[in-house]
Amino acid sequence: MKVSIIGYGNVATILGRKIIASGHEVVQVVGRDIEKAKSLAEKLFAKASNFTDLPDSNTELFIIALSDSGIQECFSFLKSSTALVVHTAGSVSKDVLQNVSAHYGVLYPLQSLRKEMDQIPAIPILIDANSEKAIQTIKLFAESISNQVCFSNDEERLKLHVAAVFVNNFTNHLYHLAEIICKKEKIDFELLKPLMQETLSRLNAASPEFLQTGPAIRKDMSTVEKHLNILNEFPQHKTVYQTLTDSIMLHYS
Amino acid sequence: MKVSIIGYGNVATILGRKIIASGHEVVQVVGRDIEKAKSLAEKLFAKASNFTDLPDSNTELFIIALSDSGIQECFSFLKSSTALVVHTAGSVSKDVLQNVSAHYGVLYPLQSLRKEMDQIPAIPILIDANSEKAIQTIKLFAESISNQVCFSNDEERLKLHVAAVFVNNFTNHLYHLAEIICKKEKIDFELLKPLMQETLSRLNAASPEFLQTGPAIRKDMSTVEKHLNILNEFPQHKTVYQTLTDSIMLHYS
Repeated sequence: MKVSIIGYGNVATILGRKIIASGHEVVQVVGRDIEKAKSLAEKLFAKASNFTDLPDSNTELFIIALSDSGIQECFSFLKSSTALVVHTAGSVSKDVLQNVSAHYGVLYPLQSLRKEMDQIPAIPILIDANSEKAIQTIKLFAESISNQVCFSNDEERLKLHVAAVFVNNFTNHLYHLAEIICKKEKIDFELLKPLMQETLSRLNAASPEFLQTGPAIRKDMSTVEKHLNILNEFPQHKTVYQTLTDSIMLHYS
Repeated sequence: MKVSIIGYGNVATILGRKIIASGHEVVQVVGRDIEKAKSLAEKLFAKASNFTDLPDSNTELFIIALSDSGIQECFSFLKSSTALVVHTAGSVSKDVLQNVSAHYGVLYPLQSLRKEMDQIPAIPILIDANSEKAIQTIKLFAESISNQVCFSNDEERLKLHVAAVFVNNFTNHLYHLAEIICKKEKIDFELLKPLMQETLSRLNAASPEFLQTGPAIRKDMSTVEKHLNILNEFPQHKTVYQTLTDSIMLHYS
């Protein structure tokens, strides 16, 4: 397909690389800062354009990869297009595009993307659209760049976005809290990495529901008390420890 | 070394397998339930013994791999031994062994071990002892079965045990909470796994402190509100979401 990418951030860059690697053509990279647009456009063998150059008449698919709050910025410039328009946001309704084009939808990459990535990880894609025809086009396109493509409507996508916050943002924060303890004790954080990998790898064999271990699920209050006592030095950790311990106990009570 | 293993659970089984794979000899597997002791002893080419058979005079190292609460059960049987005695518990002081043997210490595997494991993951080992000589013996032994061996005293080990709870027990619980959302929405939990792996793999490049992303660190209250609203269906998730969001905001304020 002939694709225009609106944006030059993390999602725009990584999707752009996947798109050309899959044999599609990126016609243009569009953004307010033309120098930044150029920088990405060069890597994708595309031209760089301003919002005012929109819509490009060669484009079959416009992919809006702007921040949730900046997404509306390009809408007025796209209005005269008859092409398919999708956004890439997990927690924005597809219907923000209803006055932008007759054919619109969502192409949400369920992955944490950074433009500096050398190796692009697997990127599951959630799709949605306003018509069966648009769904089919987006599905074919998504399947050409990912082998995990799944339909989900606005509500499902938003819920999966919340689930992604749990396994990505919150998990990273737990790693951070553990690192703070290690730093304070001058213990190498590397020592915890095999355990972190094992925690994840084990999910290949069973559901996390059945893999839960630790003092909370054992209702081992003596260890919980020892831990809470140790965490007096780390008051913010203590709140998180207490909340997650309570949550585990509740889930298995 | 000639080793006796007291216990036949997860830690006893996996350490036992590592020990014989490293060329040491397991002399006996000791436990209250002789049938269970036999079952592990056979796998380790050892004999099975009762507590009342302790101490075996051929043994150079007794490894107590019992639960934190059951650990004291074997103490009275070991008292006449002159061999080195270690326990394997993260949150138990080495000095519980001070009346058991003149030479004692700790060999704590910082990993989540399950006896059913086919492939044994990397197992960092934290060691401690009551004398320089005991430290040296335990260090050499630990280094023969692991390439990540680190000295840590009772307090450091307890803190690392707390850190392990954060990256293992609590992380698994976050995975579980995400899975609950997926199940309710009939979305395949597998879709989140590439993101979970990416969250972990990224730590090879940088500290989790600098890898934090998501609405909390961006102070994107509009998305936080959307998420909290969605989580009205999942009241327990909501408490965890709020606590971790607050914690991230505090850490980066």
